[in-house]
Amino acid sequence: MLIFLNGEFLPRSEAKVSVDDRGFVFGDGVYEVIRAVGGRLFTADEHLERMEGGMRALGIQPSEETQRAALLGIARRLLRENGLLDGEATVYVQVTRGAAPRLHQFPPAATRPTVYLSTAPFLPPVEIRGVGAAAITTPDLRWSRCDLKTVNLLPNVLAKQLAVEAGATEAILMRDGVVTEGASTSVFGAMDGRIRTHPASNYILPGITRGVVMELAAALGHRVVQRPLLVEEIRRVDELFITGTTTDVLPIVRLDGRPVGDGRPGPVTLGLQEALAERMRTAALAKPG
Amino acid sequence: MLIFLNGEFLPRSEAKVSVDDRGFVFGDGVYEVIRAVGGRLFTADEHLERMEGGMRALGIQPSEETQRAALLGIARRLLRENGLLDGEATVYVQVTRGAAPRLHQFPPAATRPTVYLSTAPFLPPVEIRGVGAAAITTPDLRWSRCDLKTVNLLPNVLAKQLAVEAGATEAILMRDGVVTEGASTSVFGAMDGRIRTHPASNYILPGITRGVVMELAAALGHRVVQRPLLVEEIRRVDELFITGTTTDVLPIVRLDGRPVGDGRPGPVTLGLQEALAERMRTAALAKPG
Repeated sequence: MLIFLNGEFLPRSEAKVSVDDRGFVFGDGVYEVIRAVGGRLFTADEHLERMEGGMRALGIQPSEETQRAALLGIARRLLRENGLLDGEATVYVQVTRGAAPRLHQFPPAATRPTVYLSTAPFLPPVEIRGVGAAAITTPDLRWSRCDLKTVNLLPNVLAKQLAVEAGATEAILMRDGVVTEGASTSVFGAMDGRIRTHPASNYILPGITRGVVMELAAALGHRVVQRPLLVEEIRRVDELFITGTTTDVLPIVRLDGRPVGDGRPGPVTLGLQEALAERMRTAALAKPG
Repeated sequence: MLIFLNGEFLPRSEAKVSVDDRGFVFGDGVYEVIRAVGGRLFTADEHLERMEGGMRALGIQPSEETQRAALLGIARRLLRENGLLDGEATVYVQVTRGAAPRLHQFPPAATRPTVYLSTAPFLPPVEIRGVGAAAITTPDLRWSRCDLKTVNLLPNVLAKQLAVEAGATEAILMRDGVVTEGASTSVFGAMDGRIRTHPASNYILPGITRGVVMELAAALGHRVVQRPLLVEEIRRVDELFITGTTTDVLPIVRLDGRPVGDGRPGPVTLGLQEALAERMRTAALAKPG
């Protein structure tokens, strides 16, 4: 597999960054994961716009390589050269503040950001999407800028590991009595005839798939309310589901070892799952761009 | 300058880690900075014990190279080969969870941690220690496990940058109405005949120099109380100072543009500064070990 690193297309095994890279010593960078279906990038503009916003918020200086058109060109070349124009794939994009002698404050303005892109084949886990998955709840230990998609991901790593150790797929995070989101997904609950999710704020990532799913839900006639599920409410939702770039719409049918609703994927969740799949198929058939 | 990376002593320019290193993509690692005075490591056991505790808390598997004796041997060899046995130097140690395909959860148990050590000459900023430095206050955006010295340092980076942009040396962090610590230092205030500092908890790093300074303060007959300064109290302390491995004891004489106390380093601070310097001189003269 070829990857892209700072201007070069390289075999993955040769792709190395300096020990002085601020990504390595400070986690000082942002990233995105973009889905490709039949060689076409899905919601790439939304992902790259979010990344540009993250870079602005963190004061990471853009370079020619971090321009949207440049990143899209690199992503497409990687998909092509890695034989990923058929079927499904993911594109990983990471931009860090670059390599410089270790001081917490920003390095000199001339420091070029590190730009890294890689691709991988993606096999949608179709089976688990049909039967639903298990999740656990755990305290949200993260910082106060969860709206930024940075590589400071240690709390997410620890939460996901807890889920895996419990035989679950996702860890659902709780802060101050409410459900914020999953370790790497957005969380929705259906109850009382509404679909509830945490509002966009500094405590959640504004998920791209979250946005698409909210739009699809409205189009299907559902009432979507951006008000967080309370910790006590998540035990009595009718349906619970998580969304994400590689998660799509995944029913959560067991939470902390107990069934959610009747323990099977519900009609709201399955309807949204199908609507998202249809949206992605349509996008994949559209003219290349 | 030679550095050490995963079993090899290399020129710094050749020291590179895989783009799959979990330090680079998740900030999934711990680090320490250790002071060397005349070739002797100061409080190295305390630093490495803290790092071992961090690895345990994060579930990073130790390896032969992460054993304390191995790390001390590598650090001493680097100091020697880099000509840093005279004068002052710092040793940087970082251990990450290693390189593995990107999944949030822990990689397979056989994944070896990445071990990186480097050294640098250190020139104590003697002048500013005599006259004192400026600091700003800013909200503490960090996660809930500030007791772990991890490379998820983005909030610290942002806070330090705010300080530098304000012409200050340090950013003092405030959470829930109290002073926690600095972006890369511990914070102490002297008022009402006591020395106050935040208690060891999940909201501060148990600073090694903080511990030494508390011990020295007690020996000098000061009353040290581990109770956080309230946000409103920090405006009316008699003296304010910060401590750290490369900071030693640094008087803060201006806070958010206003003088602290009479705007000059106070006797409590200067006494502790001298006591710490004496402690380090004594340690440097002790038998090598």
